Amino acid sequence: MAGMDDGPRGDAPIASGPWLRHTRRVAYENAWVTIWHDEVTRPDGSPGIYGVVHFANLAAGVLAVDERDRVLLVGQHRYALDEYSWEIPEGGVPDGETALDGARRELREETGVEAGTWRELARVHLSNSVSDELAILYLATDLRHGVATPDATEALEIRWLPFEDVLAMTLDGRISDAMTVVAVERLALIRALASIGG
Amino acid sequence: MAGMDDGPRGDAPIASGPWLRHTRRVAYENAWVTIWHDEVTRPDGSPGIYGVVHFANLAAGVLAVDERDRVLLVGQHRYALDEYSWEIPEGGVPDGETALDGARRELREETGVEAGTWRELARVHLSNSVSDELAILYLATDLRHGVATPDATEALEIRWLPFEDVLAMTLDGRISDAMTVVAVERLALIRALASIGG
Repeated sequence: MAGMDDGPRGDAPIASGPWLRHTRRVAYENAWVTIWHDEVTRPDGSPGIYGVVHFANLAAGVLAVDERDRVLLVGQHRYALDEYSWEIPEGGVPDGETALDGARRELREETGVEAGTWRELARVHLSNSVSDELAILYLATDLRHGVATPDATEALEIRWLPFEDVLAMTLDGRISDAMTVVAVERLALIRALASIGG
Repeated sequence: MAGMDDGPRGDAPIASGPWLRHTRRVAYENAWVTIWHDEVTRPDGSPGIYGVVHFANLAAGVLAVDERDRVLLVGQHRYALDEYSWEIPEGGVPDGETALDGARRELREETGVEAGTWRELARVHLSNSVSDELAILYLATDLRHGVATPDATEALEIRWLPFEDVLAMTLDGRISDAMTVVAVERLALIRALASIGG
């Protein structure tokens, strides 16, 4: 686990709330994540370490719903899980691209679909015990169809399913991807609360 | 980034759906996560790498709701985000402990609360583009109060807030933790759908 120092070893510690960071070392790095290994003082004053998974990209997800209330899902084998997963179109947004531009680009690349109306549905930190990954989820409507251009790491299937069927899939666990669950159930909740409210 | 080989370098590749894994190296490891650096063949046949964040523990989360429909939240500074975060009680469940036992233990340790009735609300993969982290979320009711025994890494505040206020906090982004958002909004949705249906 040799790595590069990028922390101020020997300098004053850096506060993170009740935590103190004494050193930071890059333990691993690729195009998507950097692992920081930090030496810290914990909230109770005891010494410890913290391994932080820093994401290079923002995660954007797009719940695209057509005029017949059908939802666009992409299916792919998720390497990290070794499981097949049906999800809304998702992708990484690098620094220098806005979240909305990244969401538009991912939707177009993965599915060929473009949308005339965009609305932010949710922002969530996906796994805040060890990572700083932020997801921004959009509702995309007024859809137009074009040609997909998925990249080499993606072997995607595309399906249009009724919203109520996709909601049933999140509720019974057939869809387990957190970004998809949050987007679908938040839209369902907004609709249900509007229906109850009048 | 020296590490230990635990993959069959030179042996036959291992399939993960349309992916092939040729080698696997432990790039980083602590008590909570292991980073695997894999050499792969991607679905389109091109060579690549994959960095997998493997979690030692299952993540358990507990939406505890009392007889006055108040929700138990814990507040803490999340080191990986350098942000204060209000969340349902959550914690890691190691191999050898059931998810439900781990959820009971985390609730008791963090808050001193015990629950007579447990129901599984959701299972989600939190960040499946790079990690295998699985979260299981429970609804806990019939609550009894005891004495909390948080561990050294936790400096927790505890609050009881009306369910409708907690839901407002997830919907407007004051609560951003994905496990909390999924648990709170799923319960709200189940209630709303029951209200509409009946």
